[in-house]
Amino acid sequence: MHKLHYPPPGSAPTAVSVPAEARPTSIKLIEYDAHSFVEKQVGAVDELLDSLENQKVTWVNVEGLGSVELLEELGRVFQIHPLAIADIFTVGQRPHLDAYDRQVFLLLQMVYQNDELELVFEQLSVLVGDRFVLTFQEEPGRDVFEPVRNRLREGAGNARFLRNDYLAYILIDTVIDHYFPAVEKIGEAIEGLEESLLEKPTRENLREVHEIREALALLRRAIWPQRDLLLRLWHDDSELLSDRTKPFIRDTYDHSLALIDLVESYRDATVNFMELYISGLSMRTNEIVRVLMVLSSIFIPLTFIAGVYGMNFDRASSPLNMPELSSPIGYPAVLLLMAAVAGGMLLYFKRKRWL
Amino acid sequence: MHKLHYPPPGSAPTAVSVPAEARPTSIKLIEYDAHSFVEKQVGAVDELLDSLENQKVTWVNVEGLGSVELLEELGRVFQIHPLAIADIFTVGQRPHLDAYDRQVFLLLQMVYQNDELELVFEQLSVLVGDRFVLTFQEEPGRDVFEPVRNRLREGAGNARFLRNDYLAYILIDTVIDHYFPAVEKIGEAIEGLEESLLEKPTRENLREVHEIREALALLRRAIWPQRDLLLRLWHDDSELLSDRTKPFIRDTYDHSLALIDLVESYRDATVNFMELYISGLSMRTNEIVRVLMVLSSIFIPLTFIAGVYGMNFDRASSPLNMPELSSPIGYPAVLLLMAAVAGGMLLYFKRKRWL
Amino acid sequence: MHKLHYPPPGSAPTAVSVPAEARPTSIKLIEYDAHSFVEKQVGAVDELLDSLENQKVTWVNVEGLGSVELLEELGRVFQIHPLAIADIFTVGQRPHLDAYDRQVFLLLQMVYQNDELELVFEQLSVLVGDRFVLTFQEEPGRDVFEPVRNRLREGAGNARFLRNDYLAYILIDTVIDHYFPAVEKIGEAIEGLEESLLEKPTRENLREVHEIREALALLRRAIWPQRDLLLRLWHDDSELLSDRTKPFIRDTYDHSLALIDLVESYRDATVNFMELYISGLSMRTNEIVRVLMVLSSIFIPLTFIAGVYGMNFDRASSPLNMPELSSPIGYPAVLLLMAAVAGGMLLYFKRKRWL
Amino acid sequence: MHKLHYPPPGSAPTAVSVPAEARPTSIKLIEYDAHSFVEKQVGAVDELLDSLENQKVTWVNVEGLGSVELLEELGRVFQIHPLAIADIFTVGQRPHLDAYDRQVFLLLQMVYQNDELELVFEQLSVLVGDRFVLTFQEEPGRDVFEPVRNRLREGAGNARFLRNDYLAYILIDTVIDHYFPAVEKIGEAIEGLEESLLEKPTRENLREVHEIREALALLRRAIWPQRDLLLRLWHDDSELLSDRTKPFIRDTYDHSLALIDLVESYRDATVNFMELYISGLSMRTNEIVRVLMVLSSIFIPLTFIAGVYGMNFDRASSPLNMPELSSPIGYPAVLLLMAAVAGGMLLYFKRKRWL
Amino acid sequence: MHKLHYPPPGSAPTAVSVPAEARPTSIKLIEYDAHSFVEKQVGAVDELLDSLENQKVTWVNVEGLGSVELLEELGRVFQIHPLAIADIFTVGQRPHLDAYDRQVFLLLQMVYQNDELELVFEQLSVLVGDRFVLTFQEEPGRDVFEPVRNRLREGAGNARFLRNDYLAYILIDTVIDHYFPAVEKIGEAIEGLEESLLEKPTRENLREVHEIREALALLRRAIWPQRDLLLRLWHDDSELLSDRTKPFIRDTYDHSLALIDLVESYRDATVNFMELYISGLSMRTNEIVRVLMVLSSIFIPLTFIAGVYGMNFDRASSPLNMPELSSPIGYPAVLLLMAAVAGGMLLYFKRKRWL
Repeated sequence: MHKLHYPPPGSAPTAVSVPAEARPTSIKLIEYDAHSFVEKQVGAVDELLDSLENQKVTWVNVEGLGSVELLEELGRVFQIHPLAIADIFTVGQRPHLDAYDRQVFLLLQMVYQNDELELVFEQLSVLVGDRFVLTFQEEPGRDVFEPVRNRLREGAGNARFLRNDYLAYILIDTVIDHYFPAVEKIGEAIEGLEESLLEKPTRENLREVHEIREALALLRRAIWPQRDLLLRLWHDDSELLSDRTKPFIRDTYDHSLALIDLVESYRDATVNFMELYISGLSMRTNEIVRVLMVLSSIFIPLTFIAGVYGMNFDRASSPLNMPELSSPIGYPAVLLLMAAVAGGMLLYFKRKRWL
Repeated sequence: MHKLHYPPPGSAPTAVSVPAEARPTSIKLIEYDAHSFVEKQVGAVDELLDSLENQKVTWVNVEGLGSVELLEELGRVFQIHPLAIADIFTVGQRPHLDAYDRQVFLLLQMVYQNDELELVFEQLSVLVGDRFVLTFQEEPGRDVFEPVRNRLREGAGNARFLRNDYLAYILIDTVIDHYFPAVEKIGEAIEGLEESLLEKPTRENLREVHEIREALALLRRAIWPQRDLLLRLWHDDSELLSDRTKPFIRDTYDHSLALIDLVESYRDATVNFMELYISGLSMRTNEIVRVLMVLSSIFIPLTFIAGVYGMNFDRASSPLNMPELSSPIGYPAVLLLMAAVAGGMLLYFKRKRWL
Repeated sequence: MHKLHYPPPGSAPTAVSVPAEARPTSIKLIEYDAHSFVEKQVGAVDELLDSLENQKVTWVNVEGLGSVELLEELGRVFQIHPLAIADIFTVGQRPHLDAYDRQVFLLLQMVYQNDELELVFEQLSVLVGDRFVLTFQEEPGRDVFEPVRNRLREGAGNARFLRNDYLAYILIDTVIDHYFPAVEKIGEAIEGLEESLLEKPTRENLREVHEIREALALLRRAIWPQRDLLLRLWHDDSELLSDRTKPFIRDTYDHSLALIDLVESYRDATVNFMELYISGLSMRTNEIVRVLMVLSSIFIPLTFIAGVYGMNFDRASSPLNMPELSSPIGYPAVLLLMAAVAGGMLLYFKRKRWL
Repeated sequence: MHKLHYPPPGSAPTAVSVPAEARPTSIKLIEYDAHSFVEKQVGAVDELLDSLENQKVTWVNVEGLGSVELLEELGRVFQIHPLAIADIFTVGQRPHLDAYDRQVFLLLQMVYQNDELELVFEQLSVLVGDRFVLTFQEEPGRDVFEPVRNRLREGAGNARFLRNDYLAYILIDTVIDHYFPAVEKIGEAIEGLEESLLEKPTRENLREVHEIREALALLRRAIWPQRDLLLRLWHDDSELLSDRTKPFIRDTYDHSLALIDLVESYRDATVNFMELYISGLSMRTNEIVRVLMVLSSIFIPLTFIAGVYGMNFDRASSPLNMPELSSPIGYPAVLLLMAAVAGGMLLYFKRKRWL
Repeated sequence: MHKLHYPPPGSAPTAVSVPAEARPTSIKLIEYDAHSFVEKQVGAVDELLDSLENQKVTWVNVEGLGSVELLEELGRVFQIHPLAIADIFTVGQRPHLDAYDRQVFLLLQMVYQNDELELVFEQLSVLVGDRFVLTFQEEPGRDVFEPVRNRLREGAGNARFLRNDYLAYILIDTVIDHYFPAVEKIGEAIEGLEESLLEKPTRENLREVHEIREALALLRRAIWPQRDLLLRLWHDDSELLSDRTKPFIRDTYDHSLALIDLVESYRDATVNFMELYISGLSMRTNEIVRVLMVLSSIFIPLTFIAGVYGMNFDRASSPLNMPELSSPIGYPAVLLLMAAVAGGMLLYFKRKRWL
């Protein structure tokens, strides 16, 4: 289950509450245009002032939410709306897009798999302004953006020729594309489960189905709002997004649709699995119960017959008392009777297809 | 189940029916601008007339719906539509927004947890006018707005610099944010249940799932219409809401979406739980039944054999009558036969994986 | 199940078919303005001609659909579209709103509870014209509108000061508000059922759940289209509805939303009930079966042991034949063995938590 | 299951494939205005040329799709789009409306009940042009339009005073209204099933529920697209439909909504039936199993006791060996013991409410 | 389960990754107008330059995605957007339509049945430009377009008189119409299954239902987005699609609706099947269990009676000890008693309808 973070009710809407497990803040600046590329670690917010004025694309990546002061100073320098600042600190939020006056604020959820192969989400806030892109990550270590940085460093493709909106696009696209391996992994788990369920359902399968369902529920809750966000971004009419970038946004939107398609069809599959499991199980139990009951049913009348001839009525008292016991063929006759009863019942059950 | 309140059918639409458990009415006035702050208990409606004329923001908080006269007088002074007055008195209503001529009327449901940890809803009516905000609460005691009053008293943040629409926003935001702890609590109950259901489902779990479902149904019925209300408020084009307040309304709207997300995913979880419960249960019973039937099935033929040799056929009458009984190795042979039958069946069941 | 009424296929669309159980027609006229109030039984349609010309609000209430001629004459006098006339006679219809040239035709379903506490629906057709409201009821006896008439007679509230659209509103509002007690009743039945289902489900509960479901299905089918109708009425841009009446229509629309909310949540509840019932039942049976099987399982090996020592092997023939029988402690030893087997199995079952 | 007809993939879109079971084509012309009425069988398409030019309403009814040439000639004379011609020949299609340049093409499905009371669908294509209506039926025999023809012959109502769009409306209305008896029939079957399911579910019921579901699925697939088609027709802004006809179209649209309402509520009912069936069945089996297991459980310990005293331990060997057997009250004591055990268990089961 | 293809996250959006199983690329050119028809295999992209300039319709069909260079050269010559190029190479994608500046890019999924009768999808990319249509297929062998080529070669119908948008339409239409045989095949499988399920459900049926469900899931995921794509194409307002072609697109759209209709109703059918299967199975087991339990229940008391008279109480010790054994009619009386008990129970079970 998703851990819930929320500011204490009644607090001011722009009040900032640092998450308990927040990591120390570090700031990295990347600045480039078609001809130049600068990358450096930034100690104080003042060092960014130059970048605000030149004509290059500025990407400020903030890792770790430990320092409120640093972020509020950033907020003042880049004129970030206080609600956006508060959003950055409230981790575990639903992805959404907030259009502010001359900025677009995007709150995304990145997905990773940790060492135990569980899904881990990390909140990424992206603020797209005039010439800059600000990104805020919870964790300093995990870096999905390294390939992006490499492409910028190398100036490969048209990345460095385009404006900051294209940079924002690349970052969002990278976040969305990271969902594919996570979804694929679940697809493989489902495929493995399928055969097991059709062959011989076990108690363990039940837990596996349940875990897959929970993972899918988490992915759905992350992907659907990001789809909405991309749709709004595509149809956005602010001037922050250029016409050249729009087809790329649509492409990422198509990816989000493909992800939703997959997640929904996996979800349908798990519903079918649950039914398969239950009906396979009851099929199996029914078979066993049927066979055993038929078996018992055959022996019960036989045991009764044996019981009758085990009675101790005094043959001496009356010729009516169990004359069979003295008959010279009494025993074989009874054995034959038993065989006939058993055979008759077997035949009857066979004909009824109960065996 | 929600208690249903409604005016007797056929009564006039604006007819007021005081709820049976209504509490005595008390009125509190808060009046402020950037430079001043006044807070006082008001005895008669006349005392509010001054506040209507000055340029300060006026917040009149009415607690308890016991006095129809007082509220109707308020209605006349603040020119409240008779339908709004009737709505205030009909407690337990579905949240909704009614735009009147120069006023917006909001009917909200606040949520609390009582001492038995059950969810309790309290209706809050908010009337936003030109320079004033009127709030009507059912219960005088429970005060969710105390932190808001404190912020106003201290002049913290920008609360006192903004118009009455911002005050209305803060109040709505406080109401919505109070849903988070309630929803979180349910999330915890679900998590606790999950392990128990996967390990060993008990009868008590069934009642717990049912109670969680009911609580979720109540929360859904309260949150969904409040989401609609916030959306309408955000897109409202009356002049009552300033552009500066709009981003804040959107923020609260985002909160309501996050709440819905949570409630819906908890709801899905309980559906899964029900299935887990049922299939876990039948899995367990199936196991027991299988083992016991196998056990019985092994002993039934053995008992039959014992029964046969317990028959009293008269060996003297004929050599065909139970000659086994006189055989010197009759008894050990029969014991061996029994062991062979039991062993054979055990093997068969093992091979069939019924054990 | 709802009884289906429809004209024979292939008949003219405006053909009128009097329902089999139609009651004799009677016409009542109410005419008022702020200063006057007239109420009279009308024998012939001619008596209404005056009312058509004066400036007062005219309410013609027709009870019983027995006389086609009378209604067709009314149709000519009030210029009612032939399709509307045909609709009035086709009882049991889905509620709908038909906007004609200068008239609005509403077909509503009133709900009552009969003496056996079953839901009974009665079709009410309302025709709103320039200065008049025509209402057509199936049954002459049942009068939900008596409180409305009283309010008009007494001139209470603003009823008599407003135009005929307000009268139409009051009538619709009365119809909708009559659904609340019907829905409330179902709510109570659900609450009663809930405890029974959680404690000890009985066969009777199944029938009760089924009956509640059917009643809810009937209510849904009546309320949803009336909600749509009210929404269209609220957003209607014909001049028949004045701006003063619109907020009242919206209020009734809010009532219909509240009703739908209730009906849908009761419906969800019955779905849960069905699941509760089934799983509670299988829980109960599982418990019984488990306990009884464990019991039997303990006795079956014991009976087998007793069977063994009931065999009649001839001890004289060989010392191998049942030497235990002659052992001085044979009997107590066997009893001890039986106790040990029983005890061992009980322990095993306890440890497995099967008991 | 619906039989699927489709042109071979890769063939030209306007290619015509005559259905295997096509019947010979015959053409009937009806021509009328307010003052005249002509009805005749037409041998060759040329005979229709006159009708194209005069000012009367022309209705050409084509029965049987056996002759491609005749229909293609009709197509040339009436300027029918080749896609419409191809549609006429592809029977068993989903109802739809295609607006061509100055014609509206409607493809409808008529419903009948054959002698075995099964639902049979027949495709009806309607082409509405300037002054003419062309209808194409699969089967020559079955005539739902005879009452329409009679109304035209007799000049009853306003049928003959109106344009050809009204004729088209009458035909569509007749098709839709023919669904009512089919749906009603299913409603009766459902009602019959309901009692049986609540009282005592049988294996036959399962098949009946299944057949009702299939019939409902077929009706849904026919009615929903016809509803869409009527909605589009109502909101159509081509000049082919006059304002006088529009309210009639809306009336038929209302009928389609009523049909959908019925079909959907019957569908919900069958879902409930399935649940009723399953839970009623398991309730019944549970009862039987419970009673029989309790019965067996009582006798099993008694049989064990009898077994113990049937053992043959040698009383002579030791006073410890079954001294009870020699006790003067041994037998009655054991019988009492058995009665006590049975009574005790009965009491226990009663108290546990297992009996 | 669908195999998932996606570019490595973090790679450039326009990066091309050749699928592992890509086949060598071959290019075929078809060029025609009303009077001429040229068809040739093309070795190098340069050979297409002429075709770009003349006024004929140009269809370039590329089979096999093995050569990135060839396709990128094509991209430069025909000015294809890099995202479209990347899409062509990412096989197994969700169908979608991307409108570029003066081109429309369509990504479709063709469906085939392989030799094992499984569904196989193949991605078809269609690029519609000014005077040309480019198509890209994964596999060189399978040619669904041969009938289309034949129609062009023969100049049958109006294919060669129309612009390239009509050619694009024919190709799309052919792709969609190929779904009909695939869907029909599933329909037949469903019909076969139905009877088996109603008569006697087997374990094999479960797997068949599951496989049908998976095939339907794959078809749904392919058809739904293609329906959306056709709807967008129909309502497209770019000048690439002429008004003459639009009705044809609508026709194909109607086909896609018919396919969806079929797939959805088959899906409903499989849900019903699952329920039929489960309830038929439990019905069957319940019957067997009932009959066998009744049988056992009759014998258990009889065996008990036999057990009682098999006890060895010493008649000599006391006249109270089993005097029945010495009674001259003891044995027949006990036999009668047994018959009476068995008869009584049979009667009771018959009356309770347990037999």
